[in-house]
Amino acid sequence: MPHKITFFPNRKTVTAPDNQTVLKAAGGAGIHINATCGGKGNCGKCRVVIKEGAVKHKETGLLSEKDMAEGVRLACMSIPASDLTVEIPLGSQMRRGGKIATGSKLGELQKMVAKTCEGEPRPLTRKVFLKLPHPNLDDNISDVERLKRELDRRGYPIDNIHINLAIIRKIGRVMREKDWMVTATLLPVGNVVEIMDVQPGDTTKPRYGAAVDVGTTSLVVYVVDMFTGKVVDMESTYNPQVRCGEDIISRIVYATEMGGLDELQKLVIEAVNGLIEKIAARKGLDPEAVDTLVISGNTTMVHLFYGIDPSHIREEPYIPTATFLPLMRTHALGLRINDFGVIYAMPSVASYVGGDITSGILASRIYKKHELSLFIDIGTNGEIVVGNSDWMVTAACSAGPAFEGGGVKYGMRAMDGAIEKVAIDPATFEAKSAVIGNVQPIGICGSGMIDAVAEMFLTGVIDQRGKINLDCGTPRVRSGEDGPEYVLAWAAETGTGKDITLTEPDIDNIVRTKGAIYAGFATLLKEVGFGFADVEKVYIAGGFGNYLDVERAITIGLLPDLPVERFEFLGNTSIMGAYMALMSKNLRKDVEDIARRMTYMELSVSRSFMDEYVSALFLPHTNSDAFPTVERMRKVL
Amino acid sequence: MPHKITFFPNRKTVTAPDNQTVLKAAGGAGIHINATCGGKGNCGKCRVVIKEGAVKHKETGLLSEKDMAEGVRLACMSIPASDLTVEIPLGSQMRRGGKIATGSKLGELQKMVAKTCEGEPRPLTRKVFLKLPHPNLDDNISDVERLKRELDRRGYPIDNIHINLAIIRKIGRVMREKDWMVTATLLPVGNVVEIMDVQPGDTTKPRYGAAVDVGTTSLVVYVVDMFTGKVVDMESTYNPQVRCGEDIISRIVYATEMGGLDELQKLVIEAVNGLIEKIAARKGLDPEAVDTLVISGNTTMVHLFYGIDPSHIREEPYIPTATFLPLMRTHALGLRINDFGVIYAMPSVASYVGGDITSGILASRIYKKHELSLFIDIGTNGEIVVGNSDWMVTAACSAGPAFEGGGVKYGMRAMDGAIEKVAIDPATFEAKSAVIGNVQPIGICGSGMIDAVAEMFLTGVIDQRGKINLDCGTPRVRSGEDGPEYVLAWAAETGTGKDITLTEPDIDNIVRTKGAIYAGFATLLKEVGFGFADVEKVYIAGGFGNYLDVERAITIGLLPDLPVERFEFLGNTSIMGAYMALMSKNLRKDVEDIARRMTYMELSVSRSFMDEYVSALFLPHTNSDAFPTVERMRKVL
Repeated sequence: MPHKITFFPNRKTVTAPDNQTVLKAAGGAGIHINATCGGKGNCGKCRVVIKEGAVKHKETGLLSEKDMAEGVRLACMSIPASDLTVEIPLGSQMRRGGKIATGSKLGELQKMVAKTCEGEPRPLTRKVFLKLPHPNLDDNISDVERLKRELDRRGYPIDNIHINLAIIRKIGRVMREKDWMVTATLLPVGNVVEIMDVQPGDTTKPRYGAAVDVGTTSLVVYVVDMFTGKVVDMESTYNPQVRCGEDIISRIVYATEMGGLDELQKLVIEAVNGLIEKIAARKGLDPEAVDTLVISGNTTMVHLFYGIDPSHIREEPYIPTATFLPLMRTHALGLRINDFGVIYAMPSVASYVGGDITSGILASRIYKKHELSLFIDIGTNGEIVVGNSDWMVTAACSAGPAFEGGGVKYGMRAMDGAIEKVAIDPATFEAKSAVIGNVQPIGICGSGMIDAVAEMFLTGVIDQRGKINLDCGTPRVRSGEDGPEYVLAWAAETGTGKDITLTEPDIDNIVRTKGAIYAGFATLLKEVGFGFADVEKVYIAGGFGNYLDVERAITIGLLPDLPVERFEFLGNTSIMGAYMALMSKNLRKDVEDIARRMTYMELSVSRSFMDEYVSALFLPHTNSDAFPTVERMRKVL
Repeated sequence: MPHKITFFPNRKTVTAPDNQTVLKAAGGAGIHINATCGGKGNCGKCRVVIKEGAVKHKETGLLSEKDMAEGVRLACMSIPASDLTVEIPLGSQMRRGGKIATGSKLGELQKMVAKTCEGEPRPLTRKVFLKLPHPNLDDNISDVERLKRELDRRGYPIDNIHINLAIIRKIGRVMREKDWMVTATLLPVGNVVEIMDVQPGDTTKPRYGAAVDVGTTSLVVYVVDMFTGKVVDMESTYNPQVRCGEDIISRIVYATEMGGLDELQKLVIEAVNGLIEKIAARKGLDPEAVDTLVISGNTTMVHLFYGIDPSHIREEPYIPTATFLPLMRTHALGLRINDFGVIYAMPSVASYVGGDITSGILASRIYKKHELSLFIDIGTNGEIVVGNSDWMVTAACSAGPAFEGGGVKYGMRAMDGAIEKVAIDPATFEAKSAVIGNVQPIGICGSGMIDAVAEMFLTGVIDQRGKINLDCGTPRVRSGEDGPEYVLAWAAETGTGKDITLTEPDIDNIVRTKGAIYAGFATLLKEVGFGFADVEKVYIAGGFGNYLDVERAITIGLLPDLPVERFEFLGNTSIMGAYMALMSKNLRKDVEDIARRMTYMELSVSRSFMDEYVSALFLPHTNSDAFPTVERMRKVL
């Protein structure tokens, strides 16, 4: 029997079909509950409090007796047995509209794009206004031929003009609606011109496009004026697919083994529709005037966006179905912009180096520079590119989601309530922290983790192996249920009413993550015969990058020990690349070249990578000679 | 309230929704009742007998008191007021499966096509069997790129290969299903190759195509083995759109003013599906193996087949929406052959000269000959082409449907029960007739009408103006309810139990029809500076053409008075042309050239045509010098 569930603090009531979990029911109502494991009962993050009513709850061992007594249940393991009132505690809420990094260098970017376009944006489609001669008995060719003839006069050879049935079906009405004046939208593909739309009257202006960053974690949309290149407005939200699994692998499993491909596609498409509609409403523009979309995302995200089975991405030899997607009509994917709009996807290189990375290379411009550059995008995965204008190699290291909150007890994304900076007094071991949004902390984000681990290491709270020294003589260090832990914030100071700690298993995860990324750098460089000293520039991308303290990242051995001025933060290069490709034909050509030119190395089977990885599982590294700056700091302290 | 209607002799019961007419209900059950006017209550042909139950019947004045007393009602004007038992009299039945002319010169045609193809059929799409190299970590390009790379090796340049989302979505599974062996179906368009389908394993054989003649009145399908060019089998049926209007204009009205475009499209598509499935079942072949369709029809029929609004075809200046249709996937039109099959439509010239005529020119080969030829397709419309290998002009004369049974009291199509030959004894005025199928006559078809009018004229039953001489002194000539009439068959001899007559209004219609066609010939010839004497060859096409007696047609002035050996019957050239285009790329190119090269003349506004038409409203013609043979015959008699 279906039951009603009322969620607090959202104050939304939803009717859940038979046997649907509370987690799914919430998702269906647009209420997002944290669920790192995708709802399998492993992560224990989707804790909710059943205030009224009863649930069938599957035992997982993740809740204490006290929890159970207080009505706490895991939303993913609870099926309503009656109507319910459910409270979602702060720690389980995945708030939309939290601050997400959306790219910081927009001004510079626009100048660069303008230069590349030579002042004239070249979107995917062209709009041409045509005054057609009226037909009469002596000039009685068909409507379609009349249009083609006029286009031929404008320099599009008649034999290479294609038109499809949807347009043919409406063209008779459209041509007669405004006295034989029409606007044709044309898509040049090779030497062929496809008529994408024919509208009555002059609709050449205004025109808008949308650049979309489809991240595993978050979605960012820019709506752009196609004549000026100006970003009209931007919006971002969490990728609602998160509730089906936090990382790429769990999404693939959800899409394939659990038959959720359509659901995942719909979730992301609807979210993008929502963001564009939000901007359109706010700016008073017609979503119909948005007729071009460029998306940038990792290979799996792009597969899911287009509804393509991603299953082979996770099986050796890790083959994606498509790295280059054909241009297609947006309505084929359920996008609610102009009915005859087109979508372009930034091309991928391989299963684990996607369009977000080719976007990043486009935005970083390293493919145009002579200096040896290193590019890294630290997201749920860690993708690395080494190269210059002559060559580029790339690899992905399964860094894991630690820096985005996964596998860390109080880990969370960089949003309000996240501890983003930590300082530990070397004498008292007392912690001070800065919290995003200046509110009471509810968890810790990636940059906070890096700070915390660096500080703990420099102050001797942890050793080179990341093991906590229980003899520090501070109550902040103690034995918890998961082993030794350090208390970053006491219950009284937090937004959850509980201590926020960093446990030894958390630190282990963080060390493994930073180790994988560093090993990726090292392996890739060695493979092409270089060392870190040869690297002239390191570009760091990712939502994460906005808050990264380079010195602290060097301290834990995440980044190589190079002079700080060689590092450059680029912010969200995925959206930047999408924006560039939206505006410029030359840059679309560039990014396709980039995708074809990059050599992909599969690190997961590399012996050398494994060696590097094992060496990097120390703080900052087994070979401390590689981190002289860190050694100096340790001596100072 | 919905009511049940049981139809006899079909013995089918159907539940009619509220306010649905008996005519519509019958159509919905696949029972076809004659309705020349498309169900508007004008033609009076859809007479049915209500054996049980009651109907609400709208008065039309077309039924006598006796009819009413006997339970006769018009199906189009009757709405069930209770459950009904309805008998459809023989005269109102439009039988499926009656013999329809389907083209007679198939043997010759196949030889010609084989010659044109130089022994190698070139269908619209090519199928290529590929053994793809297995992917591994060193060769880990995407599935799509792997396919493209292999096609590139086979000579299709990789940059010009297009693939769409539907194929991308299934390709991962397909490639792995039979150990990386696949068959790709390719559609070359200009210098681009579109991947239409990818199937597991080797599916290059067998392949079938279908040629379809979409006539206003009937549908004919050939299923063809694409390797041998052999016609596997053929099927024909009435175009079920007939119940929405017998001629082009009433279909256009039905499609537009009555909102029936979708219905008309579905009717014809479903009928074609049915014919193909019938052949497939009979021959034990998989409809999936049919992957190419070529349709040939007049411009309106093609518009309706593709679901394109035909409204402008009937409004001056008579502009069709499209004369050339793009190649497209059959499933987009609801055709149930191979999911990724393609459809090609024979190109049209203008609103009233369609793909059936370009097919006819292709089949007649006059575009390859030096001699001055005249081509005529006598169907519901009369289309004429004059020309040779250097030039061609074409026109349509709205001949009207008389020769197909429309506007003639006992008129019917050339099928079982139709009087097809008539001889009248000049002394006794007694008639002898031949009936198709050697059954009791139920009406008269076009060739029978020509014979009858010719005989009546030669024997003096009618005069030059087509007026019946009531003083013949035979009971066969009498005054009927529509004026003077001649009894072709007495009630006792007929299948309907009623006299079959030819009335003065019938003869008027026939004379107008033949007058329009002759005037078309004459005007078109004069326009290009020729006379009938210059015509070296006259090709006659149309289902009608199979039964046409040339001498009798000359007698009434339908055909010009030329030596009989200059006439050639071609039969159904519409299906022939479709078959030719199905098999041969060169012939597709030819027919496209034909469509572009033909000059169309609009006769409906031609002063000269009106003059010719008025002169042709006599038997055989106002200018009897133009018909010396007829003059001689009249003197002999």
